[in-house]
Amino acid sequence: MTKYRKADFPVHDVRRVLEPGPIVLVSSAHKDQANVMTMGWHMVMEFSPALVGCLISAGNHSHDLIRNSRQCVINLPTADIADKVVKIGNCSGADVDKFSEFGLTPKPGTHVRAPLIDECYANFECELADAAWVNRYNVFVFEVVKAHVATRPKLPKTIHYRGDGEFMISGDETKKWRRLFRPGML
Amino acid sequence: MTKYRKADFPVHDVRRVLEPGPIVLVSSAHKDQANVMTMGWHMVMEFSPALVGCLISAGNHSHDLIRNSRQCVINLPTADIADKVVKIGNCSGADVDKFSEFGLTPKPGTHVRAPLIDECYANFECELADAAWVNRYNVFVFEVVKAHVATRPKLPKTIHYRGDGEFMISGDETKKWRRLFRPGML
Repeated sequence: MTKYRKADFPVHDVRRVLEPGPIVLVSSAHKDQANVMTMGWHMVMEFSPALVGCLISAGNHSHDLIRNSRQCVINLPTADIADKVVKIGNCSGADVDKFSEFGLTPKPGTHVRAPLIDECYANFECELADAAWVNRYNVFVFEVVKAHVATRPKLPKTIHYRGDGEFMISGDETKKWRRLFRPGML
Repeated sequence: MTKYRKADFPVHDVRRVLEPGPIVLVSSAHKDQANVMTMGWHMVMEFSPALVGCLISAGNHSHDLIRNSRQCVINLPTADIADKVVKIGNCSGADVDKFSEFGLTPKPGTHVRAPLIDECYANFECELADAAWVNRYNVFVFEVVKAHVATRPKLPKTIHYRGDGEFMISGDETKKWRRLFRPGML
């Protein structure tokens, strides 16, 4: 399992990690409970404030923890721990202490009580910014209030879910189309 | 440029194409105008109805076309036309007829007036299902009402944006973690 050394990262740049569409782990804590869930339905919504929309079904044990604490951490796992990520998505925090079951290290954040997952490439501390669509769509709008990102490797090898147990693993990274951008678009 | 032969595809399965987080092209038509834009901020929101949340800034020429027609097509371009995709994202439909400028073939849909882009791997015909967050966040919730997906290759080579002109290209595809899923989760 890779151990990442992380540094502070500008919150308005979380799109560099999230926009490619990776599976993430969402950690949460409320009262004496903590949990972690696997999530694939999310999108960047704004640079500043750094908003991220996330779909967290009411059937998930984490749903109420996040709704009640109004906080979470979005953690980016890499392909080397994909088996843990899948297992986390296939059991419930109602039955299992996932941190101990899967050997994940909870680390205290600086802005939220929800734990950072030390084994992940990036940790985004989030506060619930808008709960208006929680009942309608299970959509939580979070503001990333603090970001921690690994200093190396420069880019993470991430997993992207297609449903039916099938994953795409991130491939080549390229700047070869950068010359086609207008300066104001970069 | 690859020419794809497409077949009808179940709309509740659009997550197989969109959940990995690819850059898409959104085409639209209203009155005598048609346009296409490049979009990276989207998320699957529900299987059935097949909902997709999309962020389309008010600054985009397509914003009003979609808002007024209440329709669009979400098209999946592959890496072979990445240069066109980037150029489309770096000019405005207010100045350019992007279909002719970039040699894209508009094809009539079966459910919406917005054109399908024939050169794309998949075309999802969409109706605007919820406009409540258009003013607040530029978020459109679309229902995919008809899906057309290429029959081969089995999976598309897609581009995923990181900001700053940098792209991740989709890599390996694997089912090796499928055995870790509970049957009800597949």
